[in-house]
Amino acid sequence: MAETYTSDLFQDAADNLERYLEELCEFLRIPGISACPDSGQAMAESCRWFLEKLERMGFSGQLCQTEGWPVVLARYEYGPSAPTLVIYGHYDVQSPEPLEKWITPPFEPTVRDGALYARGVNDDKGQVYTYLAALESYRRCRGDIPLNITFVVEGEEEVGSKGLLKLLRERPEWFRGDMFLVSDSSMFSKELPAVTCGFRGIMAMQIQLQTMKQDLHSGLFGGIVRNAPEVLVQLLAKCKDEEGRVLIPGFYDQVRPLSQRERDTLARLPQDEEKLAERIGAPRLYGETGYTAAERKCARPTLDINGIWGGYLGEGSKTVIPCVASAKLSARLVPDQRPEEIYAKFEAFIRSQLPPDVQVTMEYQFGAMPVLIDDSDPNVQLAAHAIEMGFGREPVLIRSGGTVHIISEIKERLGIPSILILGWGRPENGSHAPNEHFYVEDFEKAVKSLCALFAQLAEPRPNEEGSAL
Amino acid sequence: MAETYTSDLFQDAADNLERYLEELCEFLRIPGISACPDSGQAMAESCRWFLEKLERMGFSGQLCQTEGWPVVLARYEYGPSAPTLVIYGHYDVQSPEPLEKWITPPFEPTVRDGALYARGVNDDKGQVYTYLAALESYRRCRGDIPLNITFVVEGEEEVGSKGLLKLLRERPEWFRGDMFLVSDSSMFSKELPAVTCGFRGIMAMQIQLQTMKQDLHSGLFGGIVRNAPEVLVQLLAKCKDEEGRVLIPGFYDQVRPLSQRERDTLARLPQDEEKLAERIGAPRLYGETGYTAAERKCARPTLDINGIWGGYLGEGSKTVIPCVASAKLSARLVPDQRPEEIYAKFEAFIRSQLPPDVQVTMEYQFGAMPVLIDDSDPNVQLAAHAIEMGFGREPVLIRSGGTVHIISEIKERLGIPSILILGWGRPENGSHAPNEHFYVEDFEKAVKSLCALFAQLAEPRPNEEGSAL
Repeated sequence: MAETYTSDLFQDAADNLERYLEELCEFLRIPGISACPDSGQAMAESCRWFLEKLERMGFSGQLCQTEGWPVVLARYEYGPSAPTLVIYGHYDVQSPEPLEKWITPPFEPTVRDGALYARGVNDDKGQVYTYLAALESYRRCRGDIPLNITFVVEGEEEVGSKGLLKLLRERPEWFRGDMFLVSDSSMFSKELPAVTCGFRGIMAMQIQLQTMKQDLHSGLFGGIVRNAPEVLVQLLAKCKDEEGRVLIPGFYDQVRPLSQRERDTLARLPQDEEKLAERIGAPRLYGETGYTAAERKCARPTLDINGIWGGYLGEGSKTVIPCVASAKLSARLVPDQRPEEIYAKFEAFIRSQLPPDVQVTMEYQFGAMPVLIDDSDPNVQLAAHAIEMGFGREPVLIRSGGTVHIISEIKERLGIPSILILGWGRPENGSHAPNEHFYVEDFEKAVKSLCALFAQLAEPRPNEEGSAL
Repeated sequence: MAETYTSDLFQDAADNLERYLEELCEFLRIPGISACPDSGQAMAESCRWFLEKLERMGFSGQLCQTEGWPVVLARYEYGPSAPTLVIYGHYDVQSPEPLEKWITPPFEPTVRDGALYARGVNDDKGQVYTYLAALESYRRCRGDIPLNITFVVEGEEEVGSKGLLKLLRERPEWFRGDMFLVSDSSMFSKELPAVTCGFRGIMAMQIQLQTMKQDLHSGLFGGIVRNAPEVLVQLLAKCKDEEGRVLIPGFYDQVRPLSQRERDTLARLPQDEEKLAERIGAPRLYGETGYTAAERKCARPTLDINGIWGGYLGEGSKTVIPCVASAKLSARLVPDQRPEEIYAKFEAFIRSQLPPDVQVTMEYQFGAMPVLIDDSDPNVQLAAHAIEMGFGREPVLIRSGGTVHIISEIKERLGIPSILILGWGRPENGSHAPNEHFYVEDFEKAVKSLCALFAQLAEPRPNEEGSAL
């Protein structure tokens, strides 16, 4: 009877589901779009809304001003003997454009076919709200929360987290704890919950080549001057071979080889490569030989051209020899690659291959370290067990191919021992897209999972104590 | 005394120079921009202006309607024993934008530092007007013009000559003659007049690659899908080697090798590669080994990327894997390359190199045959002699690296035996650019050269007859 010690919590969560959803809808109706300079009032309303909920549960908090939108920072102090949880989320949302593609308006939350539709419901208002709901149920059932909890809820996640990153660097003590929890990602698939144990890092850069001072007529100068897009094409073609292996010298030097255990874990995930290829509209998946698709998409580094341009891009034809060509590139990194080092290798390679009469301008745009969480961490196991109780299914431990800047900063700077990345959304829930949604069923299971997690953290679990209740 | 038989003509041209310039200014004040749909009235006024000038000199003509702007077609019939000259020009001009860069307004012709400034003065109103001026002087001095002359003056040269090309194909008999004359190009340099004896042809095409049905997130899909710009870069890098030699199989098969005589002629042209490189802002000129810059820029074929684009082109960074990438390319062709054949070779090469899971769309945009005029044609020699008289300096026989679509059609379709390309502008006169100008001195020399040419064509030259007057 593994569930008996959570049955009061689960019952309360189920009984209050409607009310929780109504409260979440209040939050969702506030159109706080961080990228929109006119959002001032809505952004202020959003963060105040969240802070007030916390204050009503006994948290003391503040809105930390930044150069951009404020960060909600609130603490609940139980006592020095209790563990400290740092819960991260964000109250800002992406712009809902194109509006005409929404079946119901983005800021008028609506339940349809078992899912709640609204901008931000999946990313991240609905997911961060599960923590409020779980804490409320927990307090109602048990009277108090025997944990120290810090909430960090920022308003700039969709625009680069600049304010929060500055706060993290300047006031790291505010964010320290034993455990860092984030729910801003996805389950493995619609029926299979997950604990994410890794993210790739990133290095983003831009390159511009210039071969002469102006574009020239291809008739009058064709054959005697360098065509900038041509030089760029020649250079970029040397950066990767035709199966996708990066040819920058030293690119793979710091890559920690996958252990057999990691390969086995990835191999056990249910995957259908053909179905995935069909969904993205490609005849087949593609990539480095010697690695499975599951390995390539989360545990191997990449290099991608994100954009390339030069010369005449309009209708018809213009017979010009372009003097300038540019590209944006980014590499996804895995442990122990470091973005600055990868950029330096890339830059050295480009300069070594560049014809001496071509000018190059390179810019390191941003970087984030890869993150790998040891899945034998007892807290990871604890979270997995809680999710199993909440969802009725054992979660898989996965690595994501994406990058969450804030997590790599948290891991690098704060030294929090446990990082728990618990995505409640489904991969197809449409974050950043029209008709973003979050399944009511998943919401309820997530709240129950968090109740179970708090219960396990707050008191020794029955299977450890040998007695239920 | 080689000039005696033209002295009356030259005197008349000099005496009437001011009046000719005033008349040309009337033409230049009409702002007929063929690319501008609102130009209807000005375009109509331009072509009527030109036709009326011809009618006043005894020509009978018409405005041939096309789907675009009309073509002025006018004839002067002297008799079947006289040779027939077909004189081509255009009355349309390019848009004068950016207006703020003009020192004096583009449609208010102004003389400054020995040059007349106005949109179209060099390209082509001022150049085609030299024929009107020369004919007027000739008639005034000699009473009649003992030549058959057809004027073809179109209004769509700056936008592709569609209407005229259609007329040429449908009514070739209207354009037949013994000699085709064009003045819509340049001298070799500001002090050195030229007869242009060749143009390169062209093949312009566009290619688009698609690797999947939408752009994907480079974190979640990086490593398992094909990046379209990357495939394009790999493909285009295979089309040319690093010194600029085209690697498309068969590309050079039809290239007629340069004869020693042709190489010698090109080598005699005064050229300063360092100065040219400095002018275009490149450290040095560049291209195929084994050929001089003069050979490469007019007598060797090329392949250029005119535009390339794919993925995110905005500010900052967007970590996307683009599904589509495109490029516009064009090849300049030399005898005996044919645009359709070159396109077919290009297309076959691309298809042979393309990974099987990538979709390609290729489009042949347009083509024109290369033109080579035999410089031993007695009429070329005659024109060179006339120019020597008008300019006081022997012209050089040059090949242009550019393409004049209409000339390649004339040569291909009409079989006119002699084509005389007599450019009166200086290379730096700013066609298509702000502050376009035409030197008064060059204008006068051009009118005199044409007077001399008409005189030589109309009556046996003194050195052939053995007597001067």
